[in-house]
Amino acid sequence: MKTSIKLIVLSLLYIGISCKQKNTGDSKVSSVDESMEEVHDIERVEPPNWWIGFKKPELQLLVKHPNISASIPEINYHGITIKKVNKADSPNYLFIDLNISETAKPGKFNITFKFEGAEDLVQTYELKSRERPTEDYVGFDSSDAIYLITPDRFANGNTENDTFENLNEKTINRKDDYARHGGDIAGITSHLDYIEDLGFTAIWPCPLLTNDMHRASYHGYAITDLYEIDPRFGTLDDYKNLASKMAEKGMKLIMDQVANHCGVEHWWMKDLPFKDWVNYQEVYEANRGSWTNKTTISSNHKRTTNQDLYASKKDKEAMGNGWFVSGMPDLNQRNPFMARYIIQNSIWWIETVGLGGIRQDTYPYPDKDFMSDWAGTIMNEYPNFSIVGEEWSFNPLLIGYWQDGANNKDGYDSNLKSPMDFAMQGLIIEALNENESWDKGLVKIYEGLANDFHYATPKDLMIFPDNHDMSRVFTQLKGDVINTKIALSYLLTLPRIPQLYYGTEILMNDFEKPGDHGVIRTDFPGGWDEDTMNAFTGIGLAEDQKEMQLYLKKLLNFRKSSKAIHDGKTIHFAPEKGVYVLFRILEEETVVHIINKNNKPIELDLKRFEEVGLVGKSMNNVITGETIIWNDTLELKMKGSVILTTRL
Amino acid sequence: MKTSIKLIVLSLLYIGISCKQKNTGDSKVSSVDESMEEVHDIERVEPPNWWIGFKKPELQLLVKHPNISASIPEINYHGITIKKVNKADSPNYLFIDLNISETAKPGKFNITFKFEGAEDLVQTYELKSRERPTEDYVGFDSSDAIYLITPDRFANGNTENDTFENLNEKTINRKDDYARHGGDIAGITSHLDYIEDLGFTAIWPCPLLTNDMHRASYHGYAITDLYEIDPRFGTLDDYKNLASKMAEKGMKLIMDQVANHCGVEHWWMKDLPFKDWVNYQEVYEANRGSWTNKTTISSNHKRTTNQDLYASKKDKEAMGNGWFVSGMPDLNQRNPFMARYIIQNSIWWIETVGLGGIRQDTYPYPDKDFMSDWAGTIMNEYPNFSIVGEEWSFNPLLIGYWQDGANNKDGYDSNLKSPMDFAMQGLIIEALNENESWDKGLVKIYEGLANDFHYATPKDLMIFPDNHDMSRVFTQLKGDVINTKIALSYLLTLPRIPQLYYGTEILMNDFEKPGDHGVIRTDFPGGWDEDTMNAFTGIGLAEDQKEMQLYLKKLLNFRKSSKAIHDGKTIHFAPEKGVYVLFRILEEETVVHIINKNNKPIELDLKRFEEVGLVGKSMNNVITGETIIWNDTLELKMKGSVILTTRL
Repeated sequence: MKTSIKLIVLSLLYIGISCKQKNTGDSKVSSVDESMEEVHDIERVEPPNWWIGFKKPELQLLVKHPNISASIPEINYHGITIKKVNKADSPNYLFIDLNISETAKPGKFNITFKFEGAEDLVQTYELKSRERPTEDYVGFDSSDAIYLITPDRFANGNTENDTFENLNEKTINRKDDYARHGGDIAGITSHLDYIEDLGFTAIWPCPLLTNDMHRASYHGYAITDLYEIDPRFGTLDDYKNLASKMAEKGMKLIMDQVANHCGVEHWWMKDLPFKDWVNYQEVYEANRGSWTNKTTISSNHKRTTNQDLYASKKDKEAMGNGWFVSGMPDLNQRNPFMARYIIQNSIWWIETVGLGGIRQDTYPYPDKDFMSDWAGTIMNEYPNFSIVGEEWSFNPLLIGYWQDGANNKDGYDSNLKSPMDFAMQGLIIEALNENESWDKGLVKIYEGLANDFHYATPKDLMIFPDNHDMSRVFTQLKGDVINTKIALSYLLTLPRIPQLYYGTEILMNDFEKPGDHGVIRTDFPGGWDEDTMNAFTGIGLAEDQKEMQLYLKKLLNFRKSSKAIHDGKTIHFAPEKGVYVLFRILEEETVVHIINKNNKPIELDLKRFEEVGLVGKSMNNVITGETIIWNDTLELKMKGSVILTTRL
Repeated sequence: MKTSIKLIVLSLLYIGISCKQKNTGDSKVSSVDESMEEVHDIERVEPPNWWIGFKKPELQLLVKHPNISASIPEINYHGITIKKVNKADSPNYLFIDLNISETAKPGKFNITFKFEGAEDLVQTYELKSRERPTEDYVGFDSSDAIYLITPDRFANGNTENDTFENLNEKTINRKDDYARHGGDIAGITSHLDYIEDLGFTAIWPCPLLTNDMHRASYHGYAITDLYEIDPRFGTLDDYKNLASKMAEKGMKLIMDQVANHCGVEHWWMKDLPFKDWVNYQEVYEANRGSWTNKTTISSNHKRTTNQDLYASKKDKEAMGNGWFVSGMPDLNQRNPFMARYIIQNSIWWIETVGLGGIRQDTYPYPDKDFMSDWAGTIMNEYPNFSIVGEEWSFNPLLIGYWQDGANNKDGYDSNLKSPMDFAMQGLIIEALNENESWDKGLVKIYEGLANDFHYATPKDLMIFPDNHDMSRVFTQLKGDVINTKIALSYLLTLPRIPQLYYGTEILMNDFEKPGDHGVIRTDFPGGWDEDTMNAFTGIGLAEDQKEMQLYLKKLLNFRKSSKAIHDGKTIHFAPEKGVYVLFRILEEETVVHIINKNNKPIELDLKRFEEVGLVGKSMNNVITGETIIWNDTLELKMKGSVILTTRL
């Protein structure tokens, strides 16, 4: 989408900023005034703009232009100094280290690239003022409930942007599970009320950046331009509009970012700045013309090598440097220019959009020291921000290792607030699918939750019944609606940050092809004008779908204001006779979550829970609205969960 | 075995110790001379003797005698002072706190119990000198290999002590898996050469103390006298003789101790000193006459309550205070007199026998602060000693929690050097029983071993293929001899302290009733005169039994002197194509352990292991004795493990 032709734009937005530098006359445009004429000689400068007022005064610009390395860049703007100009291995790149002093003012200025024996090139660059204080970038936490969306499959809000002739994958086909279906940012924005009404307070859309891949580009994880919204999802303005509409509702927008890899069609793959810009670059370059499904350089996916005291160098290298899949080049974050590029990219998006969090993909795959720097730099700039990282492991040792404050023996501190709790996710499924015995069934979640003693901050872990890469929870639970309700209500009561995948509320499933990614990411009914079923309005939904929608709506809206769930102390009682009881307590509020796996009515003896201090209290059933008095016994009429609160 | 009748013994052993106290004349015998006449008026004083020269100068005597609480005890011996006399709830006990000053000399002295209006009672007590420096009590470590024996089932070395009329279980019956079979200490002692030849360096016999239970007393875990060797196993002298014979061979004797519970026929259960001597004592006392299989006070076995931040008080109490089984009263270590009793008992046995380690039963069941004191006190007195504790959990988080130096977030430090590694044990079985796939088979032990990053000192963990409570490894591995060899050779190569159960060397199994305790603990063939098969001599053994015996003998004897296995650095390579390779390296010695799960010959590409630096080196196959040169490839002829060493 970027070209090298000269683009002269009158900056209409540039108002009210004082700019005292004078034109030095030694370049076409070397300083600015309040309505300066912008010049864009250069093919690509990234980040496309920056801001004043960060704690870290350094900025590194990637400049890409034919033979740009032959030039000497100059800037004449108060407070901006070029500290160093770094050449790359390719002559078509420069990396310019700028220092932004505390006295620098927001404004536009020109960077003049001087060539010996050739005309200067000029690029106008802008330093913006920050729109809000850094403390206002507040990330998600245990008071939130996150709605995860695969944007291509949620709702097609703008049919004008379904296909683009200049993109590699040109068609949409809703009958093909791996093709584009047309969902977009506008589709999310136009259904914010639905999501808010359900009780969600945050949205995590899978990556929205351009994936200009030849096929299966819908999922978003093969990014080919880290500074561009995929046109099929919309524009940067659409994205900013979504963020601002969400902010009006007090909702948080979480961006899905990928530091580990890009798509093989990424623009830089045609002309890589350094010999080590991506890992195993030499193999790729030797085979570029015939690149298909080479597997010789793929990762061994042995994630334990990140912690393993005994891992061979060979395996560590294969894990860290191997490509996630053949279509996704593995970025080399040990190249300091790549490292800076990724960090600045993340900050650029936070600042541009006003994000309420980042979800970082494939967390254990990039260089782990880099990841610590990455998260550390972000958290240093935005102390109230949140990042959640994906370590797909059922081993609490590995999950815990990645959490900020883990006190790891090797001294590693990730700076990552929120690892994902795959361990508990897996146990919830096992606990409900299994029959009860001394080591099966509910005891698994009882003992699994006990592992919280290991985590630095358990309530910052993200819990989920499934996600875009896993079989739908309704499928995992074999189509058992009651067990699905138990799973959801349990995880929504835990000291965790809950995340649910779109469509869970209407029992979306993948029975057709269990675990198939395309099927997991089925279109949300009602997201397309032609849909006969509409989950937004309820038209055409089956009774059990409507009931689940209502169930989740009640639960999530209750959770929204339940400080006991957000921050309360937890007490649970070992499962006995198929019943497991968990309490969340904060000051005057107590929430009780009871799982009953018995298929017949039972009388629960409440004397066992005396220490919780509820005797004689009135409690409200969050789902039915009934009020009970907590006394000697409680009748559990059927299999399922009962959620009670002292808030009447 | 103890009575309250007066026993006067001339101390023949008391030689050469100067004793300067004078007879004060105010009691029958109140001081000693070099051939003092011993007086034993008192039914029971425990510990039965003590030593001078411990770091901790305090000693607490339990004195049991009818109405002893009415007396005032006096001691007149240089350096010994009565600090405090503690009455119990029962009038028949006194707990006397003594201080042993640094100037106290070894010797015998009398304790005079003065009664108002009744004759004094006198008990001679001995303070011995310690036989060797405290540093010489060296515990087992990763250079050892431990042979675990169920003494009743190994060898009947003395048929004179098979039954005793004054014990509750009066018969032996080798046809009944839960009856006594007659094995004893003499049986172990007489087969030390066999055990040593196999390559073991330490022996852990299951408890040898009196279990005067009515049935199933053979296993040893229902102790009814903590200061007495079960007469059916032999005498204290037999036990000391075993220890001294083992010491001559440089072998270590590990004592199996039980701090959590005793047998319900323990002598003190008839007259409990305190109201809180055992947990749920009031329930027991109310039902004592009709005590059978009451389960109302049994433990909930929820061991995670020891760590769980959210565990209810109710569950913690049920875990810690509940009885392990109805025949085993749960000792209350929060009673400070009970705590002292157990700690002194352990030290008494270490010092009396010259132990080379303690195995502590059911580690997470007693009060955990007490357990830390217990282990801490022992390790403080014997800094080179070793203790291994049983936490039967497959969760490395729990196993790691119990290890000394764990740096637990709750501040708990167990002082326990060696937890048992049930996690790795379970994974070895799974890895070999499963077919290879991305998450099954060898990857389980590869990733399981990676968990070592979590442990304070991985090489102090005890690893085992099975034990007296688990199905035999040959049974767990479905009778697959090759897999059994793989399991054994792998665990003998790991950075661990290995323990094998008697009979593993001849493929003993429990196919007949898998998991049945009586069958697991089958008689070792040849241990009884009438046996037609004799594993000590090889007579009657099947070929595969002989081969396994030889296999283990080679391995264990190799391991005995392999410092690379004891203390070497570990490097392993992720399983590929059914082959998993692990290296142990120390200075000039490298040991390679290769597991090949392929059922056909394969060529292993050795280039992958280049970083280990073996290229061009000659290596010896530990089992076949063949020499190979480590170059480009290695032919693996069949499924199995190959163990190579650079030591030729």
